[in-house]
Amino acid sequence: MRKLGVHEIEDIALGAALLGAGGGGDPYVGKLVALGAVKECGEVTLLSPDEVPDDALIVPIAMMGAPTVLAEKGIGGKEYRTLFEMVSRFFGKDIYAFMPIEAGGVNSMLPIAASARLNLPLVDADGMGRAFPELQMVTFTMGGMSASPMALTDEKGNSVIFETITNKWTEELARAVTMSCGGAVSVSLYPMTGAQLKEYAVRDIVTRSQRLGEAIRTVKNSADKSPEEHFLEAAEGYKLFKGKIADVLRETRAGFNFGKVILEGIGECKGKNAYVEFQNENLVASVEGVIVATTPDLICLVDTETFVPVTTDALKYGKRVLLVGLRCFEKWRSEEGIELVGPRYFGCDTDYIPLEERCKGGLYHV
Amino acid sequence: MRKLGVHEIEDIALGAALLGAGGGGDPYVGKLVALGAVKECGEVTLLSPDEVPDDALIVPIAMMGAPTVLAEKGIGGKEYRTLFEMVSRFFGKDIYAFMPIEAGGVNSMLPIAASARLNLPLVDADGMGRAFPELQMVTFTMGGMSASPMALTDEKGNSVIFETITNKWTEELARAVTMSCGGAVSVSLYPMTGAQLKEYAVRDIVTRSQRLGEAIRTVKNSADKSPEEHFLEAAEGYKLFKGKIADVLRETRAGFNFGKVILEGIGECKGKNAYVEFQNENLVASVEGVIVATTPDLICLVDTETFVPVTTDALKYGKRVLLVGLRCFEKWRSEEGIELVGPRYFGCDTDYIPLEERCKGGLYHV
Repeated sequence: MRKLGVHEIEDIALGAALLGAGGGGDPYVGKLVALGAVKECGEVTLLSPDEVPDDALIVPIAMMGAPTVLAEKGIGGKEYRTLFEMVSRFFGKDIYAFMPIEAGGVNSMLPIAASARLNLPLVDADGMGRAFPELQMVTFTMGGMSASPMALTDEKGNSVIFETITNKWTEELARAVTMSCGGAVSVSLYPMTGAQLKEYAVRDIVTRSQRLGEAIRTVKNSADKSPEEHFLEAAEGYKLFKGKIADVLRETRAGFNFGKVILEGIGECKGKNAYVEFQNENLVASVEGVIVATTPDLICLVDTETFVPVTTDALKYGKRVLLVGLRCFEKWRSEEGIELVGPRYFGCDTDYIPLEERCKGGLYHV
Repeated sequence: MRKLGVHEIEDIALGAALLGAGGGGDPYVGKLVALGAVKECGEVTLLSPDEVPDDALIVPIAMMGAPTVLAEKGIGGKEYRTLFEMVSRFFGKDIYAFMPIEAGGVNSMLPIAASARLNLPLVDADGMGRAFPELQMVTFTMGGMSASPMALTDEKGNSVIFETITNKWTEELARAVTMSCGGAVSVSLYPMTGAQLKEYAVRDIVTRSQRLGEAIRTVKNSADKSPEEHFLEAAEGYKLFKGKIADVLRETRAGFNFGKVILEGIGECKGKNAYVEFQNENLVASVEGVIVATTPDLICLVDTETFVPVTTDALKYGKRVLLVGLRCFEKWRSEEGIELVGPRYFGCDTDYIPLEERCKGGLYHV
């Protein structure tokens, strides 16, 4: 058990941008929401999963819709109270703690705001260990858990509870209401017991975000290591390429950002080239035509000087970036996990091979 | 308190087609659903509003979406059980009785099926005394009541509860989910207490439907009156015109059926002409260019021989029809009522003048 305040939130937001693997939205707006809540209502208690009773009701909190719309509409002070009341009433039992559903991007921040406003603990865990674009892409799906009852509320005060026959129907119906409400709403989904949390959640991910953010913030403070060494060591990252953005191809289709970013080698990579394909999140990275990493491993682009992560939205011609791979949560590497979030699900015609094997014999490891 | 069985349902369906005032969908499919439920589960107890305790939870049941889709998808045996459980759980109190939200069209029948399946009484009342196209067009709106919490379920087993800031938002969000679920769903809305029911509902409307249906069925049995006299007397109807359908103009816009039917006079109306404009329901009737009736009074077309009502969907060139006006529920004639369902709401540029005044001095009254 420890406290999350302004300082911790700054680092978690920075780390969450890295764990977003290019997607999940820029945590900046979420950070403002979390900071506002903590300044107004006080620090948040972060619990380790082991500190949660087995029969406690634990509820992930997130936004659904477009982070860019969230930036315009904002979040009021009442949404999380509404969600708390809806879900507690549904189960006839008060929510014991909130948690993030995804550790990457804007949704890393909003549960902190919810916990601050309701004075409820936050659990140091999530359902992805990164960011993914669809509602069923959580470790809880592997545990056979249902996204519903899912509660949804907008900033105006409308609220909806969904109970659906499959998680795909939850996605379908909640998406329709999200659009009618203007494109961004607050939700709670995958309500679970403490026992389920302990079995299926990605543990300690908030703390990992914070450590990553701290490493990025202090990257130039190391006496005996280069900033790059310092960053890669802290992130347990695989250095895949270093280059200048030579082109960005984008296409918006079915509510997703599809695209490809092309890198021209610089420094030790001069004369070589690489590319990364993305659908919100980065999916596949290739160097000299050879795939070096695929989803569900995390493929991240960071600034070569500051090591601040660059989301797919912010890719710009001429920017110098380091291409880094991070190993995904172990359970994603099971057959069931690969079926849910492996490269073939996203239409990439390649088997999943763990990052560290893809890179074996390559030039740039940690 | 009395029982509704197969015989009563047949008559209620026939009367409901008249109270639909051209809209509400043909009660035929709904009648099959109600008959199926009563044959399987037994007769339904019909309660007068005065027999309902003031603190009882009373819930109107209806379908939302297109009656034509209902005819294809059907209704299973489980939807009403699901609605019962959702709403009872929400209020922490079991539903005491169901009721229809509208007496006209297909929605006159479905609450009978719900009552039969759940073995719950049906209240002899509704919220319109006829049919109207939009969710807020109920006498309960005049009582300041909210359509939400509204419960919705589809035949597949998905279910949703809405709590909204206005009845317009209920309409918006429920409509989006209805479309995602395939265009026809079962709903409960305007949950109320027995006391609210007694103050705002249109009383004895199920019984009125049944009497109207009975009158139509037995229209040729009268020894001393013509079938037409018999029908008009039973319906307390104002005979406005008799003619042959010369043209039907139709347009489908924003999910509604707009149109106009043109009548060429026959019999005592020979040489004259009339028309009726509709939006799902009939809105305005004119004879020789003079308006003789407008919403919220009921404008009905019935076959000149059988006196079976003709819905706007079934209007066909050459059909011989009697144009009949029925006085609407008294509270619709208040300023607030006219604002909700008067001619100007539907874009007809005329004040509301009660049917019986419009017809004064005309040729064809009861």
